[in-house]
Amino acid sequence: MRKPKIVILGAGYGGLMTATRLQKSLGVNEADIVLVNKNDYHYETTWLHEASAGTLAPDRVRYDVRSVIDKNKVDFVQDTVVEINTAGKAVKLEKGELAYDYLVVALGAESETFGIQGLKEHAFSISNLNSARQIREHIEYQFATYNTEADRKDERLTIVVGGAGFTGIEFLGELANRIPELCKEYDVDYHKVRVICVEAAPTVLPGFDPELVNYAVAYLEKKGVEFKIGTAIKGCTPEGIIVAKGENEVEEIKASTVIWAAGVRGSSIIEASGIEAMRGRVKVNPDLRAPGQDDIFVIGDCSLIINEEINRPYPPTAQIAMQQGVTCAKNITALVRNEDNLETFTPDIKGTVCSLGEDDAIGVAFGKKMTGKTASFMKKMIDNRALYMIGGPSMVVKKGKFNVL
Amino acid sequence: MRKPKIVILGAGYGGLMTATRLQKSLGVNEADIVLVNKNDYHYETTWLHEASAGTLAPDRVRYDVRSVIDKNKVDFVQDTVVEINTAGKAVKLEKGELAYDYLVVALGAESETFGIQGLKEHAFSISNLNSARQIREHIEYQFATYNTEADRKDERLTIVVGGAGFTGIEFLGELANRIPELCKEYDVDYHKVRVICVEAAPTVLPGFDPELVNYAVAYLEKKGVEFKIGTAIKGCTPEGIIVAKGENEVEEIKASTVIWAAGVRGSSIIEASGIEAMRGRVKVNPDLRAPGQDDIFVIGDCSLIINEEINRPYPPTAQIAMQQGVTCAKNITALVRNEDNLETFTPDIKGTVCSLGEDDAIGVAFGKKMTGKTASFMKKMIDNRALYMIGGPSMVVKKGKFNVL
Repeated sequence: MRKPKIVILGAGYGGLMTATRLQKSLGVNEADIVLVNKNDYHYETTWLHEASAGTLAPDRVRYDVRSVIDKNKVDFVQDTVVEINTAGKAVKLEKGELAYDYLVVALGAESETFGIQGLKEHAFSISNLNSARQIREHIEYQFATYNTEADRKDERLTIVVGGAGFTGIEFLGELANRIPELCKEYDVDYHKVRVICVEAAPTVLPGFDPELVNYAVAYLEKKGVEFKIGTAIKGCTPEGIIVAKGENEVEEIKASTVIWAAGVRGSSIIEASGIEAMRGRVKVNPDLRAPGQDDIFVIGDCSLIINEEINRPYPPTAQIAMQQGVTCAKNITALVRNEDNLETFTPDIKGTVCSLGEDDAIGVAFGKKMTGKTASFMKKMIDNRALYMIGGPSMVVKKGKFNVL
Repeated sequence: MRKPKIVILGAGYGGLMTATRLQKSLGVNEADIVLVNKNDYHYETTWLHEASAGTLAPDRVRYDVRSVIDKNKVDFVQDTVVEINTAGKAVKLEKGELAYDYLVVALGAESETFGIQGLKEHAFSISNLNSARQIREHIEYQFATYNTEADRKDERLTIVVGGAGFTGIEFLGELANRIPELCKEYDVDYHKVRVICVEAAPTVLPGFDPELVNYAVAYLEKKGVEFKIGTAIKGCTPEGIIVAKGENEVEEIKASTVIWAAGVRGSSIIEASGIEAMRGRVKVNPDLRAPGQDDIFVIGDCSLIINEEINRPYPPTAQIAMQQGVTCAKNITALVRNEDNLETFTPDIKGTVCSLGEDDAIGVAFGKKMTGKTASFMKKMIDNRALYMIGGPSMVVKKGKFNVL
C-alpha cells in the first residue's frame, strides 16, 4: 500500500507545530511528511517589533527549521509556494511541484494597506525578518545622516507608526527605549525626535480593558510618543503622510520613516488558488478543514474562526496558531489511520499580554489584569513558551528571554 | 600688563597637541588660551575607515575634548569657525567672535573632488565621524534591503572605492573583513557582493615600497577586492560611476555605494580669509607661521611642508600634525615670553604603516619593511601612541587597541 503524503506549507507557528507533532504521532511507515518554507529558518513573528526597533538582534528572533524537525520523518524543502492546485492535489513551487494527499496551509499573514495611496511604495511593514532588518537599518540611517547635512532636516527624526493595535503599540514600546540610545550614538538632540502614532479607530488597542489601555497610553506618552487617535491616514508620500483633519481638510505630517502596522490579511496564494476566502482567510470547519475540501487544512493567520461569545472573529495570534497545529496534527493522524473521529478545535485563550518595551507591559492572564514588571515577566514567559512548544527545552536555552525582573 | 590671548582653531591631532603642550609650558598668569572646535569631541581621523566599515564602534573613535584639557588654563568654546580677520586679529564664529594675539590654525582637511561631476552629490567621503557613521549605516541598509525586494538588485551589494591611497586601502582592508559578517547577518550570498577599487594613478599606494604594495594587492584580491588601476572616474550618478575605458570610451559601473577616498585639501576657511594658500594649504615658514603673518601659526593638514630630499610636499599625516603641535607650542611660549629663538620644524618620520584590516598590514618602521602580524601590531602601537601623546596613559587604557597578536 502506498504511504499517504502530507505536505505542510509554511514553517511559522502553525506549520511548525503541526510538523513537530506529526513527527511524534506518526510512524515512519505510516506517512511521508514534507515541510515547505521560503526560508531555511523559522522566525518569531511576535518578536519582529523588537528586531525592527533594533532592541533585539535579528538572529535572536529566528532558528533553523532543521533544528526542530526529525529528518528521518520530515523532508524539508526550501522553496516558495506559487499556487495550490486543489483539483490535481498538487502544490506548484517556484522550483518544483509537490503532490499531496493531505495539505496543511499555514502560510501566515500579509500586510493589508486597504488601498491607501502610496502606503505600499513608501511605508514599511513589520511583516518578516527581512523587513524588520530593513526598518532597523532605515531608522538608523536617518539618525546617521541627520548631522551630515548642513541644512538639517528634522523630519529625518520623525517616525510615524500607522496603527495602535497590538503590533503598533509593541513597536512603540521598543522604539521609546531605542530612541535615547540612537540619540546618544549619533549625537542627536532627543527633543528633535518625534514618534507619532496615528490610528483611525477611536481608541488604542480596541478590545483591550480600558484601564490597561490608559496605562499603556500614559506610559508611552511619558516616553515621548504622540498619539493621534481617531485620525485616518489618507495617503503616504516619500515625504511623509497625509491625514484627515476635521470633515474635509487634510494635513501633511513630514516623516522620513512611516511604519504601517494597522492591518494584516491572509495569504494571497489562497485566493489565487480558488479556495473560498475573505481577504485571504478561510472560514474553516470545526475540524480545521477548508469548506468543501476534505484533504486541506488551513491554520494560523490564514484561518478564520468566530468567537461565538461576541460573534466576531478571533484575532490571528501565535497562541491560536500553535493550538491549531496540535489539533491539525491529531486530525491528520486520524485520517491517515482511517479513523473518522476528527477533533473540533476550540481556542483556549490563556492570556494576552501586550509588551511596552523591555520592562513594562499590560495584559490579562489567568483572568487577572496586570501591568508593569509582572506583566513584562508574563510576556517573556509567553515568548519562551512558544519556543518550548516547538523546539523543546534546548531551544528555550538557546533563544529564550531571561532578562526578567 | 594685559595677558596675551592664544586662540587655537580645531581640536584634531595638531590643535589638541598644541593646547595640551601649552597648558604645561605656560603659567596661568602668562596667557589666556582658548580652544575652538565644532564638536565637543576629538576624533581619531586615522581610525575613521574602521568606523565607516563598521568594524569599530564610532564611540571608540572619539573622546571628549574636555577630558584632556586643563580647564584652569584652557577655555573650550564649542562653535564653528566662519572667517579669520587677519587685519583685525579676530576670528568670526557662528555664534560669536574671538579676538586673538596669537592664532593657531589647525582646521584639518576637507574632501577634494577635483570637479568630477556628481561626486559631491552621490559619493560619500570618509571625512569625519558623522560621515563615517553615515557610510556604515548606508552600506548596512543596502544589505538589509536586498532581500526585501522581489526583483533583487545586485548593485545594492556593489561598493566602489575611489582611490587606492592610504585611506582607500585601509578602508578596503576593513571592508574585506566586514563583508562576510554582513552576508551572514542579512542572509546575502557572499558571491553576489562586489568591492571595486578604482584608481586613476598607475599604481596602488604611490610612494610605497613596490614589494609591500604587491603584498597588499594580493592580500586584498584574495579577500575578493577587484582593482581597476590606471582607471579614471569620469562621473558619479545615483546609479554608480562612469569610468574611462581606453582612449575615448566610457563604461558604467552600477553601485549603490560609492566612497570617494582619492583626495583631500586644506581648509576653505583659510582661502576665504585671504591667507596665501594652495588648495587650502599654507606653505608655512620654518617656524610654522604663515608667510607675512607674525601671529598666525598653521599646522596639520592645512599646512604644507616640502620634503627637500625628493622636492615634494610631505603627505598630511597625524604624525606630522602632532610633531608640529609640539613645535608650535614651544614657539608660542617663546613669543609670549618675548624670546626670539623660534624653533625650526623638521618632521621626524618614525614609520608609516598601512593597515589591511584587523590582523594584517604593510609598512616601514625603524627603517625596516614589515608585513602581516608584525606590521599590524606596529599599526596598533602607532594608534595607541597618538592617544598617549595627547591624552596620557589613562586615554590609552580607555580607547586603546589591545586586540594584538
